[in-house]
Amino acid sequence: MNNFEFKNPTKIIFGKDQIQKIATELPNDAKILLLYGGGSIKKNGIYQQVIQALSGFEFEEFGGIPANPEYSILLDALNVIKTKKITFLLAVGGGSVIDGVKFLSSAALYEGIEPWEILSKRIPTVKGMPFGTVLTLPATGSEMNSGAVITRAETKEKLTMGGSGLFPVFSILDPCVVASIPERQIANGLADAFTHVLEQYMTYPINALLQDRFAESIMQTLIEVAPAILKDPSDYKAASNFMWSCTMALNGLIQKGVPTDWAIHMMGHELTALYGIDHARTLAIIAESHYTYNFEAKKKKLAQYAERVWNITEGNLEAKALAGIRKTTEFYQSIGIDTKLSDYIDNYEGTAEEIARRFEERGMTGLGEHKSLSPTDAENIVKMAY
Amino acid sequence: MNNFEFKNPTKIIFGKDQIQKIATELPNDAKILLLYGGGSIKKNGIYQQVIQALSGFEFEEFGGIPANPEYSILLDALNVIKTKKITFLLAVGGGSVIDGVKFLSSAALYEGIEPWEILSKRIPTVKGMPFGTVLTLPATGSEMNSGAVITRAETKEKLTMGGSGLFPVFSILDPCVVASIPERQIANGLADAFTHVLEQYMTYPINALLQDRFAESIMQTLIEVAPAILKDPSDYKAASNFMWSCTMALNGLIQKGVPTDWAIHMMGHELTALYGIDHARTLAIIAESHYTYNFEAKKKKLAQYAERVWNITEGNLEAKALAGIRKTTEFYQSIGIDTKLSDYIDNYEGTAEEIARRFEERGMTGLGEHKSLSPTDAENIVKMAY
Repeated sequence: MNNFEFKNPTKIIFGKDQIQKIATELPNDAKILLLYGGGSIKKNGIYQQVIQALSGFEFEEFGGIPANPEYSILLDALNVIKTKKITFLLAVGGGSVIDGVKFLSSAALYEGIEPWEILSKRIPTVKGMPFGTVLTLPATGSEMNSGAVITRAETKEKLTMGGSGLFPVFSILDPCVVASIPERQIANGLADAFTHVLEQYMTYPINALLQDRFAESIMQTLIEVAPAILKDPSDYKAASNFMWSCTMALNGLIQKGVPTDWAIHMMGHELTALYGIDHARTLAIIAESHYTYNFEAKKKKLAQYAERVWNITEGNLEAKALAGIRKTTEFYQSIGIDTKLSDYIDNYEGTAEEIARRFEERGMTGLGEHKSLSPTDAENIVKMAY
Repeated sequence: MNNFEFKNPTKIIFGKDQIQKIATELPNDAKILLLYGGGSIKKNGIYQQVIQALSGFEFEEFGGIPANPEYSILLDALNVIKTKKITFLLAVGGGSVIDGVKFLSSAALYEGIEPWEILSKRIPTVKGMPFGTVLTLPATGSEMNSGAVITRAETKEKLTMGGSGLFPVFSILDPCVVASIPERQIANGLADAFTHVLEQYMTYPINALLQDRFAESIMQTLIEVAPAILKDPSDYKAASNFMWSCTMALNGLIQKGVPTDWAIHMMGHELTALYGIDHARTLAIIAESHYTYNFEAKKKKLAQYAERVWNITEGNLEAKALAGIRKTTEFYQSIGIDTKLSDYIDNYEGTAEEIARRFEERGMTGLGEHKSLSPTDAENIVKMAY
């Protein structure tokens, strides 16, 4: 097990009828900016619950943060923060809204020239404007971590940011919100959370027995609840386990003391930046070819995963490892997610080369747990995913 | 799954050669009281490492906090805190030292008449004096939770306290410390952590799938590393997994959203208060009879535990549940811990009645996950454990 540091100060408020608790978590003298996405919260009743909870507080609103939170739109929100002298941000939405608010939390206190530098220069945020979240879409884990991914359409870039100052002060997780999420988004949430676990697990054995078992536990739970939640998103039992699993998949716990990969995300981000494919689906596109390409380096963990998560008992280590890859692809497909780039776009030729070129340009020359994957390796992997 | 709130702000610093990091975690202007136990830290080199890290800081020392931290001794430490105007406490030790320091953290800011009221009146501590810990004995989880158990010899009482203000600011977990722990204490740590998980798991199914799997993961890991760590406590691989499992067993995570029992602890505490039996061993004494006495209420979880943790595949639900109880007893015995009260003391007659009398006197009339166990039930359970 590697040395590690772990601190996660976010207060989670989980369960039915918890949205009203916003009122007890907000500082009394806060000047709040309520931020949300495309307006689905106005149809499913969440907006009304939030407004009711904010009764008595001074607040402004900023709606319209899109999926893959867009830099130019966030700059408009930043302007509101500055002109209205906002002191507390409240994100009501899924990972995109929360990530956007994390950028704003950092940018609001940033003293450099242009806030894009936080992303382009990878400046960690030690102190941000405090913010809370009301999660409306289980998937990214952003509600209990300190990372964010921001998109800039102008340059077709999608970059990551983070820092110890970017944990939400509180996050309200009411599994009832799942009932109104479209099936496509639920499938995305399942695939996203599942792949988050894979990225922190599918590397090489390092004798972190508990972290391995926790990771396997999250994947087993997602597999168990997937059919139920897709069949009936108002099934509270399935929804609550789905929601808590997504949070635990990326709140820092299972990555402590172990190597992590994240190459699937790096390649997937480019597919979203280039073609607008849903984030979770880009992960499903890349996973199989990434694990096949890096089979030798990952086969021990692939076999352990096949045995423990998928109950594969037959065959030698290699056979089990291959079964692990196959089961992963089948899982994505079982929840309605296609796993080849050609399932999503017709003109995919040149994609791999373009991604390799971008990685080269940004100096991303050592991806994966061994920091050994070159842009050429990424090119090969993406080609296998056509 | 039940509604829950979860927040754990403790910063964990885990791994080899981490004790020196005390210096970067302490406030520069702190006036520190370094607290420890019977002096084993002076033999194993930990004391020297701590003193080196404290170079440049203003600090006082208070040694001699005993196992089952004793109120009258803690009052002496409280006197030092007040007279020396201490602002930060540093616990270097196991659960007893850390629990004692939690009491001091609370008592230092307590404005009532007598600090014992914090325990006798169950006053939650919302704000305590800040403190950090260097863990020298994996077992209780106190390094990452906000609870403590304090003993008062004068009245033969052992009571619990806690509150959101009693999380350590930081805890340093260096698995190398395990190498110098006597076998008896390692066995105690294994049994203590294992029973902590049982108390939060062995109740009734409530569809908290992930919490169940996390709890099972901790127990599986403890079972896996027990032989290795008892054979060779300098085995870093085993020590690191042992240490992290003990912390995760009682840092609040696995109890969120599920019913918890804790009746074994309530009865066990009395055996320590009455006879001075090691805490972990009192849990091993009570567990089998508690689960046997409450078999009907717990048999579904007992069977799930038998299947998943002990790989019991034969028999119906009752048979598996019984096997689960048997396996638990065998596990305690496998690590050298006797499981009957008569293994520890000769004059045990009257113990059950005395414990029932105490519970009655304190109004502890509804123990267990259903708050249904009366003092008479406790009397019956303890008698079965003779």
